[in-house]
Amino acid sequence: MLKMHTLMSAMLLGCSISVASAWEALPTKAPEPTNNVSSVDKVTLGQMLYHDPRLSSTGTVSCASCHDTMLGGEDNRPNSMGVNGQTGGRSAPTVWNSAFNKVQFWDGRAASLEDQAAGPVTNPIEMGMKSWDEVVARLKSIEGYNVAFEKAFGSNAVTKENATKAIAAYERTLITPNSAYDKFVGGDKTALTEQQVRGMDKMAELGCTTCHSGATFNGEGSFQKFPVTTNGFFEAQHHFSKDKGLAEVTKKPADEHFWKVPTLRNIALTAPYFHNGSVATLDQAVKIMAKLQLGQEPAAQEITDIVAFLNALTGEFPKQTMPTLPPTEGRTVIK
Amino acid sequence: MLKMHTLMSAMLLGCSISVASAWEALPTKAPEPTNNVSSVDKVTLGQMLYHDPRLSSTGTVSCASCHDTMLGGEDNRPNSMGVNGQTGGRSAPTVWNSAFNKVQFWDGRAASLEDQAAGPVTNPIEMGMKSWDEVVARLKSIEGYNVAFEKAFGSNAVTKENATKAIAAYERTLITPNSAYDKFVGGDKTALTEQQVRGMDKMAELGCTTCHSGATFNGEGSFQKFPVTTNGFFEAQHHFSKDKGLAEVTKKPADEHFWKVPTLRNIALTAPYFHNGSVATLDQAVKIMAKLQLGQEPAAQEITDIVAFLNALTGEFPKQTMPTLPPTEGRTVIK
Repeated sequence: MLKMHTLMSAMLLGCSISVASAWEALPTKAPEPTNNVSSVDKVTLGQMLYHDPRLSSTGTVSCASCHDTMLGGEDNRPNSMGVNGQTGGRSAPTVWNSAFNKVQFWDGRAASLEDQAAGPVTNPIEMGMKSWDEVVARLKSIEGYNVAFEKAFGSNAVTKENATKAIAAYERTLITPNSAYDKFVGGDKTALTEQQVRGMDKMAELGCTTCHSGATFNGEGSFQKFPVTTNGFFEAQHHFSKDKGLAEVTKKPADEHFWKVPTLRNIALTAPYFHNGSVATLDQAVKIMAKLQLGQEPAAQEITDIVAFLNALTGEFPKQTMPTLPPTEGRTVIK
Repeated sequence: MLKMHTLMSAMLLGCSISVASAWEALPTKAPEPTNNVSSVDKVTLGQMLYHDPRLSSTGTVSCASCHDTMLGGEDNRPNSMGVNGQTGGRSAPTVWNSAFNKVQFWDGRAASLEDQAAGPVTNPIEMGMKSWDEVVARLKSIEGYNVAFEKAFGSNAVTKENATKAIAAYERTLITPNSAYDKFVGGDKTALTEQQVRGMDKMAELGCTTCHSGATFNGEGSFQKFPVTTNGFFEAQHHFSKDKGLAEVTKKPADEHFWKVPTLRNIALTAPYFHNGSVATLDQAVKIMAKLQLGQEPAAQEITDIVAFLNALTGEFPKQTMPTLPPTEGRTVIK
């Protein structure tokens, strides 16, 4: 397969980018770690945990509240709302296809879906549980969870580690194949409109696909700096640089403003945009990215073409059956 | 079929209540008003609206947030949490089998599911939309809803009236048949344990089934006074009388402390109990009801038997497919 720099050279030679083999369709199966091989029982348990608001202090916020699989895998809000109406500074990334990321969270601070799943549950402004000990105690007090954990992991299995493994196993099923783009790449040249093909070529020509590369259009979640260049106008409007990204975690100056590249898959469904959700529309997002990352100012028609192509990255959402959450007969675990 | 007062006479004559014909299985279809005959398209639209948090000001609260079909049809909280973490004074009733109620809300102030559905959306502490005009404008700005309303109701159909009709049509599908009790009433005498049959008989003997009557165990949502008698101990603990029920709406002294009788169907799944959610467990709820409504103090074993029977009223929850909510490509309707 052509590497992106080879592709760029090809482009400079005047080749049609849209038919180059570097464009990849989305795999229908996500990679999984050797210590968390999937099973039907794990996925079943994980889907329950993912949708259970009793994993939050108030009983009102589940993973699905901010990463809503019915709504593009996130919440369409600038930033998410956790327990007691609290909000943070970042916009919820989509859960769909997150299984293809090498790292998780906007700042990439989690090395796996398992690590990621552990975070929000005890974050005071997200799900607000005091500790995972409290979470595990609550889960153990729900008979149906004892049964489901045993099925998935064996006896005495209600632990933080297994809960996050089950959630991750479920998330690995959340893949959206067969977008118009995937069909096009698979050989159906009628799957994209002429405008969408123009947008596709333009993205490669501008250099968008240098970072938004590969099947998930994010280098599988590689790190890149944003913004690369400072622009007073956009900074005054959107305050992109206020949040230092990876450096907020590592405290290293070299990591300032480094972020996991977000996927462009289903990007049309995940407005508003950027780490702080400060950009309302996709065309404005494209305009800002071109300027700040590539020093380019595409014409209005070119931006429209690119947005048309980005709409072709909306995949098919596999139908899901709602889980029935394990009950607590005659009592509740929420105070 | 024997009426309840006939049944009570039969009981006094020493008949076995549990085999009397007044015990009714749950119908598998709910009644519907002539001006809102159901259709697949209405139910499909209604399920989307029911699960769409964009019907709230913050984009975080849907009907399903407080009436969660995955969790017994409510939220297991003493009182529900609306937009921005606000709470009110009442506990969310279950949506399951609500289609059989003649009136809706704890105080019965809505005459139909259609009327009920209109309320929370614009309640400032629930879903917080400024007005239904605002809701309709938001729905009209989502292309997929225009299509879904047209399928269900014809052209130019995005209105408050049709939105609430669709939600009601969906809610009329939320029926939980085939509980152990239903099987028993249907002729399977092994479906209940001996203890559950004792509890069933005891409920009729005490008089519980005078109000908790019929297939839904609530006289289809008739009005009754609660508490009938005042008890300083329970009042100090639970403040039942603070909320005047129907009179809060009608302002008539005669309506003070009148409430729609809540269903006992799936009651084991809907703790905590009473209009203010102040009673944590089902056995305590039975004890309080016996004392305040009937002047009775059943023995501990009798309460345990009744609770065992109430657990037999948990029905089968039909599997539901999660709706995909209509997207807003490249933008959001949430500020």
